[in-house]
Amino acid sequence: MKKEWNVVEVLSHSRHDWLNKIQLLKGNLSLNKIDRVKEIIEEIVHESQNESHLTNLKMQKFAELLMTYNWEQHHFRLEYEIVGDLKDCSEYDDSLHNWCIEFFSVLDHSIDCNNDNNLSISIETFNDELRFFFDFSGIITDREVVRNWFKKQRSEESFFQILDYQVQTDEMLVVLRLQSS
Amino acid sequence: MKKEWNVVEVLSHSRHDWLNKIQLLKGNLSLNKIDRVKEIIEEIVHESQNESHLTNLKMQKFAELLMTYNWEQHHFRLEYEIVGDLKDCSEYDDSLHNWCIEFFSVLDHSIDCNNDNNLSISIETFNDELRFFFDFSGIITDREVVRNWFKKQRSEESFFQILDYQVQTDEMLVVLRLQSS
Repeated sequence: MKKEWNVVEVLSHSRHDWLNKIQLLKGNLSLNKIDRVKEIIEEIVHESQNESHLTNLKMQKFAELLMTYNWEQHHFRLEYEIVGDLKDCSEYDDSLHNWCIEFFSVLDHSIDCNNDNNLSISIETFNDELRFFFDFSGIITDREVVRNWFKKQRSEESFFQILDYQVQTDEMLVVLRLQSS
Repeated sequence: MKKEWNVVEVLSHSRHDWLNKIQLLKGNLSLNKIDRVKEIIEEIVHESQNESHLTNLKMQKFAELLMTYNWEQHHFRLEYEIVGDLKDCSEYDDSLHNWCIEFFSVLDHSIDCNNDNNLSISIETFNDELRFFFDFSGIITDREVVRNWFKKQRSEESFFQILDYQVQTDEMLVVLRLQSS
């Protein structure tokens, strides 16, 4: 079940995120750490470009999922980075969105909720190929559940190929390849 | 006709607005105008609190209209300020939203599109009363159209009372009063 966000809610959450950054700037300014302020501004700009690149991949549902995921209650935090050329990936939007919802849910139910868990997604576009690196750090309590889920995914006909998956207690790496049609 | 915004579009516009503020900070930092940077941060925080107060009035459609209006092509820019106690005004949401859409449209078609036009809305809440001040500065080319529209509004039974309206060529002030049921 995915939440439907209205405009006012989206702006409230987004404002909250931005104000955290502004507070960080304010704090460092008051300590007169001007170089750190400049660094943080560069980080903010980089993060925004990244979000803008995600938008430009033209996968609206998938982008919405990534950009709003941390606003909901989950046991891990999500971050992402887009590397490579920007291209229109709209053909994958529905399938990728649905697949990620399921994957995130399996993961969310298999990890230690008292731990600081992070899932970092790197999306790399090269020529007609798209690769996804899901890099998890945290504590996976039900490794077998996660492994079996990937085993099942790998055995099924799909819009992507699982190049690799390694599920350890304290980390997991999954690599997907999508080929343009 | 009002545009329906999706989450990705809302975040794109919002990001664009925030990045303008960040650029302003960056510019002043590079000129070493630290006091100006601190001032701008205070302005940003104030603006955000204001947006948050608008949200807390619980008029979702109306809030969305104000918060997204400048993202569309119009002949005037809109700004707003909330003054007084926060209260639940949800009972007015639909009527106020519809009335503003019509008002903004009448105004948008009656002003000089080559001029720098601004509509500043001040929403004041006191006890069980809600007052709206619409303060326009710019060039109104079709004053009679705007006046006649207000004359008609005043003659009709409505959820509000028009306490005053003054339509001049280069400014307009309208004051509404809404009474809690």
